[in-house]
Amino acid sequence: MTSLTTIGFDADDTLWHNETVFRLTQDRFADLLRDHADPDHLMERLLAAERRNLGHYGFGVKGFVLSMIETAIEVTEARVPASTIATLLEAGREMLRHPVDLLPGVEQTVRALAADYTLVMITKGDLLDQERKLAESGLGELFDGIEIVSEKTRETYLRAFSQHGEGPERALMVGNSMRSDVLPAIEAGAWGVYCPSELEWALEAAEPPEGAARYRRIETLADLPALVAGLR
Amino acid sequence: MTSLTTIGFDADDTLWHNETVFRLTQDRFADLLRDHADPDHLMERLLAAERRNLGHYGFGVKGFVLSMIETAIEVTEARVPASTIATLLEAGREMLRHPVDLLPGVEQTVRALAADYTLVMITKGDLLDQERKLAESGLGELFDGIEIVSEKTRETYLRAFSQHGEGPERALMVGNSMRSDVLPAIEAGAWGVYCPSELEWALEAAEPPEGAARYRRIETLADLPALVAGLR
Repeated sequence: MTSLTTIGFDADDTLWHNETVFRLTQDRFADLLRDHADPDHLMERLLAAERRNLGHYGFGVKGFVLSMIETAIEVTEARVPASTIATLLEAGREMLRHPVDLLPGVEQTVRALAADYTLVMITKGDLLDQERKLAESGLGELFDGIEIVSEKTRETYLRAFSQHGEGPERALMVGNSMRSDVLPAIEAGAWGVYCPSELEWALEAAEPPEGAARYRRIETLADLPALVAGLR
Repeated sequence: MTSLTTIGFDADDTLWHNETVFRLTQDRFADLLRDHADPDHLMERLLAAERRNLGHYGFGVKGFVLSMIETAIEVTEARVPASTIATLLEAGREMLRHPVDLLPGVEQTVRALAADYTLVMITKGDLLDQERKLAESGLGELFDGIEIVSEKTRETYLRAFSQHGEGPERALMVGNSMRSDVLPAIEAGAWGVYCPSELEWALEAAEPPEGAARYRRIETLADLPALVAGLR
């Protein structure tokens, strides 16, 4: 038996609230453009822009703001006033200084596991923004490694768990994204633990790998220590 | 004597052209807004916006585009048409797919040094964009480590040269930014080699550390192997 030595944590919506901040901004966006587009239609167009731009912008707040501006221009056929775009820019800067709000049980869980395991944070998003959130979270000292990456693939986990631990076979990844945290970690040979969040970004959804020997699901991060203790 | 084992390279305007791409976009920006602002004044306002937003956006193309949009709204007192903003968004996406153009002598230099030294690329900017440029450059396989960071400080170099090499004392950093590549690397205890570029972004300027024992200047990257061979 190879015992577990390393635990990888996703950050946004696993350690702290994130999608709630995006949703608040989207609501404001819908409100600003309500004379030009029905909210559901607007959200569809925004999601389409985000998907289309992902290969250029990557993940994070800056790309989201650029996609909102693009969508505002599109749905108004270029009649959106510049003052509305100024409001979107300001909303983006507010997101980038939004206080970090840890999810329930996170601090105790991370602190408890840090005593016995090598902990790595593995997250997507804008470099500076993720560093800011980690610093504000007060959890920085508990992690042995920080990986801010442009995409989460099997290779990401192979590399991260080899660099910061003893390889994926002795590692576990926990996160709220089936597509980014769970599936590629299992593909790499690690345990993949799904911890769903209340809100999920449409581009992160995927089917669970039912039947995979190294797949687990927990309802809250506070359940992780017990799960880890029982892994064989 | 502790001999050199590790060489750190800045990327933008050290390995490949970058500022030229920004300048082309800025010229287009000035052209689009020439009815509203004198080009010199516009560039001053843009630089002020970039400086003001650096703490939120960090370095890179996405933040630059957001700052251009903000400046366009400012100088027109919110009268800029949305179609102009759409053009700025498109100019930003063009920057993000702009072909990578290596500087003269770069490929031979990096290839020659890779045989005898641990090479690390240490760069700021947007994560995805820097990864793309490295992949397109064809130099990826020659580097033992890649560090895309939000800021370059003494700590950045301490960490990077400890992780990928044998500490800063046995390392050298080369780059076109006195402020980001040379000064903090010397502060960390490494050699700092300034290789000036034709164009320099105003926010990267600094005075050279004349008299510092570990400061050197070369005129082109092709001079680096000879410099390295002579270091004592």
